[in-house]
Amino acid sequence: MQQINIGIIGFGTVGAGTFEVLTENREIIADRVGMEVTVKKIADLDIDSDRGIPVDRELLTGDAMDVIDDPEIDVVVELIGGVEKAREYILKAMEKGKHVVTANKALLAEFGQEIYEAAEKYGVSLGFEASVGGGIPIIGAMKCGLSANRIQTMMGILNGTSNYILTRMTQEGLPYDSVIREAVNLGLAEDPPTLDVDGTDAAHKLAILISIAFGSAVSFKDIYREGIGALTPDDIRFAGEFGYRVKLLAIARNLGDRLEARVHPAMIPKDHILANVNEAYNAIYLEGDFMGPNLYYGLGAGRRPTGSAVVSDIMSLARHIRFEPKGPIPPLGHVRSPEKRILIEPIQELTSAYYFRFSALDSPGVLSKIAGILGEHEISISSVIQEGREVAGSVPIIMLTHEANESNVQKAISLIDELEFLTDKTVLIRVNEQS
Amino acid sequence: MQQINIGIIGFGTVGAGTFEVLTENREIIADRVGMEVTVKKIADLDIDSDRGIPVDRELLTGDAMDVIDDPEIDVVVELIGGVEKAREYILKAMEKGKHVVTANKALLAEFGQEIYEAAEKYGVSLGFEASVGGGIPIIGAMKCGLSANRIQTMMGILNGTSNYILTRMTQEGLPYDSVIREAVNLGLAEDPPTLDVDGTDAAHKLAILISIAFGSAVSFKDIYREGIGALTPDDIRFAGEFGYRVKLLAIARNLGDRLEARVHPAMIPKDHILANVNEAYNAIYLEGDFMGPNLYYGLGAGRRPTGSAVVSDIMSLARHIRFEPKGPIPPLGHVRSPEKRILIEPIQELTSAYYFRFSALDSPGVLSKIAGILGEHEISISSVIQEGREVAGSVPIIMLTHEANESNVQKAISLIDELEFLTDKTVLIRVNEQS
Repeated sequence: MQQINIGIIGFGTVGAGTFEVLTENREIIADRVGMEVTVKKIADLDIDSDRGIPVDRELLTGDAMDVIDDPEIDVVVELIGGVEKAREYILKAMEKGKHVVTANKALLAEFGQEIYEAAEKYGVSLGFEASVGGGIPIIGAMKCGLSANRIQTMMGILNGTSNYILTRMTQEGLPYDSVIREAVNLGLAEDPPTLDVDGTDAAHKLAILISIAFGSAVSFKDIYREGIGALTPDDIRFAGEFGYRVKLLAIARNLGDRLEARVHPAMIPKDHILANVNEAYNAIYLEGDFMGPNLYYGLGAGRRPTGSAVVSDIMSLARHIRFEPKGPIPPLGHVRSPEKRILIEPIQELTSAYYFRFSALDSPGVLSKIAGILGEHEISISSVIQEGREVAGSVPIIMLTHEANESNVQKAISLIDELEFLTDKTVLIRVNEQS
Repeated sequence: MQQINIGIIGFGTVGAGTFEVLTENREIIADRVGMEVTVKKIADLDIDSDRGIPVDRELLTGDAMDVIDDPEIDVVVELIGGVEKAREYILKAMEKGKHVVTANKALLAEFGQEIYEAAEKYGVSLGFEASVGGGIPIIGAMKCGLSANRIQTMMGILNGTSNYILTRMTQEGLPYDSVIREAVNLGLAEDPPTLDVDGTDAAHKLAILISIAFGSAVSFKDIYREGIGALTPDDIRFAGEFGYRVKLLAIARNLGDRLEARVHPAMIPKDHILANVNEAYNAIYLEGDFMGPNLYYGLGAGRRPTGSAVVSDIMSLARHIRFEPKGPIPPLGHVRSPEKRILIEPIQELTSAYYFRFSALDSPGVLSKIAGILGEHEISISSVIQEGREVAGSVPIIMLTHEANESNVQKAISLIDELEFLTDKTVLIRVNEQS
């Protein structure tokens, strides 16, 4: 049986998971791909800590270049995370003619185009199934099973930590801060979990999904991002009263010549399949012109699921190599990329329905003043809840609107927030009525 | 740009959908695979009816052999359904060295091994993404993205018609017969929808999923099947009171050297993600040793979703051919098949929790007599509902059990059904507490 040699750079959580899959399922992997997949070297700055799995110490090296320079290694697996070093190693490995597998979402979101072009230039394949959705094979599905479709809508719960936090806030009525502390203590969130809760991690993943749907990288900085830090249990409760759940959603829509792309908390109808994705699970909801709606659900992180995704890429490479093909697999699943890059429409141009929670003194004329400003900005109200109950000297006024323009909404809210009887900044959550 | 020529046999719903995808998305397909995909011939007994899409009449032929014998056709797409003719055409096409794409689940479930072996013998590839789950790319996901895993559990809602019927029975409290009539009138079910509601269609699909998970075909007749015809709105309501929904589930579990494989109505906890798959949607829930739980959800039938799946197979083939590979893609995603065929454990050997609905005369001693027989068969009761309300002269007695052996349950129920105060056959629904 032919053999394919792997070098792993980065022996942290995902590196150890990858090694564990390759070791534990060695035989079924060989049966499936028709090649022996062998780990030849593992590089990490720390080659002494116990990873909880048996590793031949001879495989370990402290120098990533030992992996990259090894002429017997066919595939370099980059699992160190971070951007600068990872980029350098990947480009060097490609230059040496090695295929690359990576789980690095930040790198691909920010430097994807450079990496994809390098793969093409050096004639090597690049796998990154593990960069989005952990154990959910969403990238493979988009490149293959769904590839006959023009993707119209993507909505993802792409960050497990923030979904866990929102689930706990919803189910227990707990405030954000106490759930965060609990999640950090349980090892479910980093301390502090900034990139998870501020929308950056989800936006990285959304950028990658968009590149596959459209065949070229997008400008990451143009993806609007807003985190979950301003949400309160009250907002989640009010959402529930209106028939919605609150999720941190990554949304992209094909607008023809432009693209909608944004990450923010959103209210979705309780009976939507995405509303029922709880705890640390991830899910990606897609609509295509032929397939209709599709959902993919699973564990978005963790040593074993992410290791499983890394190894699926290694297996695809092994299968490809076994055929002695005359070229590499195109990284984005497009042989011919679009001539012009896809541009993201600024969020100010978009429309949405909105939920507002105004915090106001309980005095006459408040509601009419707020409603007046909204009306002047062509924002039409569909429901109002005004509870008598005072919270810290003020009462919450909750409104749902019909579809309105984001730019108008931002102008109206900034005027409202200047009113003297407003006691706190207005909370705004976009409402996703469309599928 | 290179070109790949397609011949379609069968121009019904799926054939028309396939042609529609290839025509409407011609350009994005070429961008993605790097080849022009061209339909060269379409064979159908009826070449006159309007399919609602523009077709060059020169493509049409009444004779399938015109497609199979055409030396310029690279891929034969079999979409006539049924078993005998389809089998003949596929084997002939393979013999002529043509790659084959099919949506034919009955054929693969019953004659899969023969077809897989023929593909190997003639060195051609075989795609059948459309045979399970319509627009859900579950076969590709299992062959690629999940291929590093040992699959431990599969649970599928694989028949859209029966899921639609159960959803309507659950949401509206309507009886089976009236929902069936409604579904037939709406064109959502065939008349009569026998293979959909008796579990056969779901079992066909389960057999195909099992072959991919384990690398060889299974004996279809060994898959236990039970339909939804005996369920009443009362059973669904009682299930709801216990916290469950009723679904027609196709279940397979890896028992090590054997396999559990069965299709029957099952109760699943309301908060399980599968319990929230409604209407005509399909879903497949999988657990692997590394990836953990995964769910795939989408439209399991229909012209456009199924057409999208057929075309994804054509695209995979085109991508493969473009590399001028030294061999075909193995049909089951396994280069080396297991030496011995996987055997299915008879359902009598399995254990499950159960729901029973006994219909009994409202007389003293009934409950103790029933409970006695259950106890003698080591079936332990976890809950009982006995409502005073009489239905047609008898009262329903509802019981949930702890895990019990199927063979003991069948023996106990047949004894109970002989008791003189039993007015109707006992209804039994298996309860799926395990993920």
